[in-house]
Amino acid sequence: MIITLKKNTPQPEIDRLIKNFEKQGVQVNMISGANYNVFGLVGDTAKLDEWRIMANEWVEEVTRIAAPYKLANRMFHPEDSVINVSGVKVGGHEKIVVIGGPCSVEGETMICDIAQEVKAAGGVMLRGGAYKPRTSPYAFQGMGTEGVLAMVKAREKTGLPIVSELMSADKIDEFVEHVDLIQVGARNMQNFDLLKALGKVNKPVLLKRGLANTIEEWIMAAEYIMAGGNKNVILCERGIRTFEKYTRNTLDLSVVPIIKERTHLPIIIDPSHATGDWKLVEAMSLAAIAAGADGLIIEVHSCPECAWSDGAQSLKPAKFASLIEKGRAIAQVVGRSL
Amino acid sequence: MIITLKKNTPQPEIDRLIKNFEKQGVQVNMISGANYNVFGLVGDTAKLDEWRIMANEWVEEVTRIAAPYKLANRMFHPEDSVINVSGVKVGGHEKIVVIGGPCSVEGETMICDIAQEVKAAGGVMLRGGAYKPRTSPYAFQGMGTEGVLAMVKAREKTGLPIVSELMSADKIDEFVEHVDLIQVGARNMQNFDLLKALGKVNKPVLLKRGLANTIEEWIMAAEYIMAGGNKNVILCERGIRTFEKYTRNTLDLSVVPIIKERTHLPIIIDPSHATGDWKLVEAMSLAAIAAGADGLIIEVHSCPECAWSDGAQSLKPAKFASLIEKGRAIAQVVGRSL
Amino acid sequence: MIITLKKNTPQPEIDRLIKNFEKQGVQVNMISGANYNVFGLVGDTAKLDEWRIMANEWVEEVTRIAAPYKLANRMFHPEDSVINVSGVKVGGHEKIVVIGGPCSVEGETMICDIAQEVKAAGGVMLRGGAYKPRTSPYAFQGMGTEGVLAMVKAREKTGLPIVSELMSADKIDEFVEHVDLIQVGARNMQNFDLLKALGKVNKPVLLKRGLANTIEEWIMAAEYIMAGGNKNVILCERGIRTFEKYTRNTLDLSVVPIIKERTHLPIIIDPSHATGDWKLVEAMSLAAIAAGADGLIIEVHSCPECAWSDGAQSLKPAKFASLIEKGRAIAQVVGRSL
Amino acid sequence: MIITLKKNTPQPEIDRLIKNFEKQGVQVNMISGANYNVFGLVGDTAKLDEWRIMANEWVEEVTRIAAPYKLANRMFHPEDSVINVSGVKVGGHEKIVVIGGPCSVEGETMICDIAQEVKAAGGVMLRGGAYKPRTSPYAFQGMGTEGVLAMVKAREKTGLPIVSELMSADKIDEFVEHVDLIQVGARNMQNFDLLKALGKVNKPVLLKRGLANTIEEWIMAAEYIMAGGNKNVILCERGIRTFEKYTRNTLDLSVVPIIKERTHLPIIIDPSHATGDWKLVEAMSLAAIAAGADGLIIEVHSCPECAWSDGAQSLKPAKFASLIEKGRAIAQVVGRSL
Repeated sequence: MIITLKKNTPQPEIDRLIKNFEKQGVQVNMISGANYNVFGLVGDTAKLDEWRIMANEWVEEVTRIAAPYKLANRMFHPEDSVINVSGVKVGGHEKIVVIGGPCSVEGETMICDIAQEVKAAGGVMLRGGAYKPRTSPYAFQGMGTEGVLAMVKAREKTGLPIVSELMSADKIDEFVEHVDLIQVGARNMQNFDLLKALGKVNKPVLLKRGLANTIEEWIMAAEYIMAGGNKNVILCERGIRTFEKYTRNTLDLSVVPIIKERTHLPIIIDPSHATGDWKLVEAMSLAAIAAGADGLIIEVHSCPECAWSDGAQSLKPAKFASLIEKGRAIAQVVGRSL
Repeated sequence: MIITLKKNTPQPEIDRLIKNFEKQGVQVNMISGANYNVFGLVGDTAKLDEWRIMANEWVEEVTRIAAPYKLANRMFHPEDSVINVSGVKVGGHEKIVVIGGPCSVEGETMICDIAQEVKAAGGVMLRGGAYKPRTSPYAFQGMGTEGVLAMVKAREKTGLPIVSELMSADKIDEFVEHVDLIQVGARNMQNFDLLKALGKVNKPVLLKRGLANTIEEWIMAAEYIMAGGNKNVILCERGIRTFEKYTRNTLDLSVVPIIKERTHLPIIIDPSHATGDWKLVEAMSLAAIAAGADGLIIEVHSCPECAWSDGAQSLKPAKFASLIEKGRAIAQVVGRSL
Repeated sequence: MIITLKKNTPQPEIDRLIKNFEKQGVQVNMISGANYNVFGLVGDTAKLDEWRIMANEWVEEVTRIAAPYKLANRMFHPEDSVINVSGVKVGGHEKIVVIGGPCSVEGETMICDIAQEVKAAGGVMLRGGAYKPRTSPYAFQGMGTEGVLAMVKAREKTGLPIVSELMSADKIDEFVEHVDLIQVGARNMQNFDLLKALGKVNKPVLLKRGLANTIEEWIMAAEYIMAGGNKNVILCERGIRTFEKYTRNTLDLSVVPIIKERTHLPIIIDPSHATGDWKLVEAMSLAAIAAGADGLIIEVHSCPECAWSDGAQSLKPAKFASLIEKGRAIAQVVGRSL
Repeated sequence: MIITLKKNTPQPEIDRLIKNFEKQGVQVNMISGANYNVFGLVGDTAKLDEWRIMANEWVEEVTRIAAPYKLANRMFHPEDSVINVSGVKVGGHEKIVVIGGPCSVEGETMICDIAQEVKAAGGVMLRGGAYKPRTSPYAFQGMGTEGVLAMVKAREKTGLPIVSELMSADKIDEFVEHVDLIQVGARNMQNFDLLKALGKVNKPVLLKRGLANTIEEWIMAAEYIMAGGNKNVILCERGIRTFEKYTRNTLDLSVVPIIKERTHLPIIIDPSHATGDWKLVEAMSLAAIAAGADGLIIEVHSCPECAWSDGAQSLKPAKFASLIEKGRAIAQVVGRSL
């Protein structure tokens, strides 16, 4: 951590600050510059609060050097983490996983049918929303427990592990019992109480990046879960909020090499919510595989127009199957398989 | 709602769509354009899902005409709402309320002392965080229940109603019992389960705008709470996330006239979290009052450098008092008082 | 174009507005809604100014239906445009072009050497900056004419066409004489006078997307050039400005399928400026090819650390060559070649 | 400047780097941390290019400590700059200036009439566009020279100095001859060649902030002009681009105290282009004055609905006059006058 002080900081203040930091277990090296004095702090600076330090009237700026995450940090865990989701392995040099399914579970028959289509196409996991995060209170909120149980039926019939979004901690037991991969939605990425609760369960978590959260904040959200004891976190990029109007969000594929460089966690891509337009999903999926992603999570619906939510971004099963075929070829080029 | 169809949409498809919409209780007027056909839908279109309609291969675009909010909409509730927080009225032509207090409650003595300062300076409500939303799991997470009770003590001594952030629904009972105004933090603005739970209690809610949520999404979050039965919502702008690096967030003061035009809810401003820099708080506070805001919520700390969180944006009591004095003068010019 | 009027708009005003629009050559269809009246305008609405219409106190909203671009619009020009840059064809089903070279021309020997490396690696065009857009007036501003002539030398030795950024119209003659592809930089994307001037020359233009310009504004900038008479425009995405701090910009690869759907112009990607980090360039380049891009423009420098500008994002020749090899394999999968 | 090196950087590399920097005239202090080594550079680091340094494979991060601007920096010029625009003084403790006028000059009579209204209302300068930056090539581009001369006539009749936007350097002579304050538009804020040209003339410049430029980039644009020899720069905030849809841009009023803290230049606010909605202009204008702005530049039109551009954000003369009256009262509170 580097602290920049105004040039005319009184000596007694400088001495007081140095003592203060040493008391907190960090060593202070001072460099005198032309217009500033600089403190270089060495030691465990993770617990220092830069906003508190910046409150000091003589402090100009505080710059963190070390990344604030440890458990997720590849520097301390050089090997890739491979997360096992009920037999499907994600990450490292494992096969690229393709997860498919509808935005919302609309009934048992419906989800079982789509599950068959997803499996036939080459998908290895089934997604489906039982509890839906809707911007409007008047929109369909999801089938709830009934939806979860319908997905369980679909798993029984196809063998596909299921991933579903958990909206609040009061349903954790239901999810731990029935769901293979618990999804934390974009709008809950910084629902810290939910993250802490998931840190205490023994179940893999799919952590979506928030609408406008930095990669660092996203990794820190994973750190919350891991700090609780649950190391099984898969990251999922789903597009970030920008000024662009032609897409629902802006898919940030640079996260793939960045996450792989800075962390050891697997990273998958959701091109459906990112683009909001089924016509863009294939191109973005192939791009994601070429970039090195560990997987894709794609919305599939037999009749997108009939979908109870997010139909515009859903692929019909035939297109989903075709995408997986092309994906296989791309995967091979980058040394992976599907 | 306006639906744009491709020019060459087959007649059977047009007929099918019209029947579909009529079945959902809306009337369809069709306009034939040079390169597009347009449906003008009339009726209760709030429940129609535009993403589902856009899934249709013949649909080019869907544009909503009516705002999706009803309960919060001034069109259906022309008079200002005045929210009563244990005797302090917020909104309409009531006095502009100034809420002050530390970011975190750090102890009973500390919060009682600051409460006295806030009251002496002219503040009418006390803020303080007992449960803190921290980006890092290693940072101070708040005193919890102890902190809430310390704030209760401060209220007993000063008579100031207290406002504090509720992080998750499992503490609702504690807050309903002890807190006068329950705050929903920026990162929880779209924690829909929390909003639904707050919709069921009889306690005013202070709803902060999310880091990167549109004004419309923000009003819809208020709509969630109101739809549950709790009409007592006060909105709070705290800066939005942008590319600018010199400030922590970008304070969007245009929300003041916009919220007043479109809704009947009170709107207050948090210049502390918005700017992240105590040196900017006064200017932004006076600007907010001049713009017509119903109140301010400002961080105050006797020793910002010692603050356990967000010290850099906290004002010392003397500066807080001075700000209130200047604020009185501005308020008078715009026909309000403090 | 759809115009939404307040429900209580007086009839005389409605009549006046209808006459006004008819006089401008558009036909008006009116739909009466529950809370709004809606005008559907049919005809050539491109010349109508929505900001002027919105000034009317009875108008709530104006929504354009047809895209504002015509010359660039695929609707009116269904076949791909193939732009010929001194023998190198870009677009359609032509080979994916890879353009390489340093950020700045630093000397004749330097640029000739890099040109040889670029050619040997498989690049088909040479980039290099003679006039540099620097945020600071104290930074190296480019070699100017000397730099252009050095690039000419490099072309003589290798046969590679050259692309370079034109900063202002006063150098147009110099560029028309010496440069094969004239680049308009991100910060000049809406320098309308420069666009108009380039519309009058017979030389292909590489139009970079602005830091925070929408895809629609970008296509309209191309429309400026095409409206002047110069149809030879190649679009280049170089990352947009967002809140993310780990990358210099956010590379928006969704532009590839979007540009191809809405326009007939070729689209290439600049992963160097987008990411600002050479370690991310390969992954993003392969992703771009997989997404369907018509080309890449990549910074290459023999000694990035010595580079006079933007060294951090430059690839060494060996890495550039390796990237092209991998790119060939990806291209094959998506039905193209390199 | 602080440079962070990886912990395992080989000693010969460390030695080489240190020599390299010393040769460039800066002194290097090294601090050894737990996981990183840090160089603290002391001396004139302005000319060092951080992107070039970051190209070194052992460098993790480069952080600038000193602001990159000097001429605009208050640290080196503690007194406020007061810019004299043909007798109207802007900045420091001078009166807050209110500039009014139409978006476009539409004729001599029109501009002379509005000029009278602006003057009668209390405005002290007349704005008007003769050369318009339009997103579409099909939109009205401005009256050109005829428009400039019409504004000259308006000045002759009212005595109001005139401010108008210069789109390209080829019209500089025309502007130097006729215009009192030359405006650089948002889309030209980083048109470096234009800035350099304006640096050479002896005429005040009104520099608008770019759509998505940071405050630092904005000040550096001013630095370009000042470095050329022209110290007379007034900054103008006109809203930045964000995700919000209810406003045309997001007005960032925090720039007022920030610009005053970091620079000595005057700062005025354009609430018209910022909000895009005349109904928001008054509230934002009063807020700007309360925040400490040195002036306002507001669009005024007798018949906004008839305006040839940007009608929706124009105020009618009566509203403009009323705004100025209220503004006077606010100004008094903050120790200024109008």
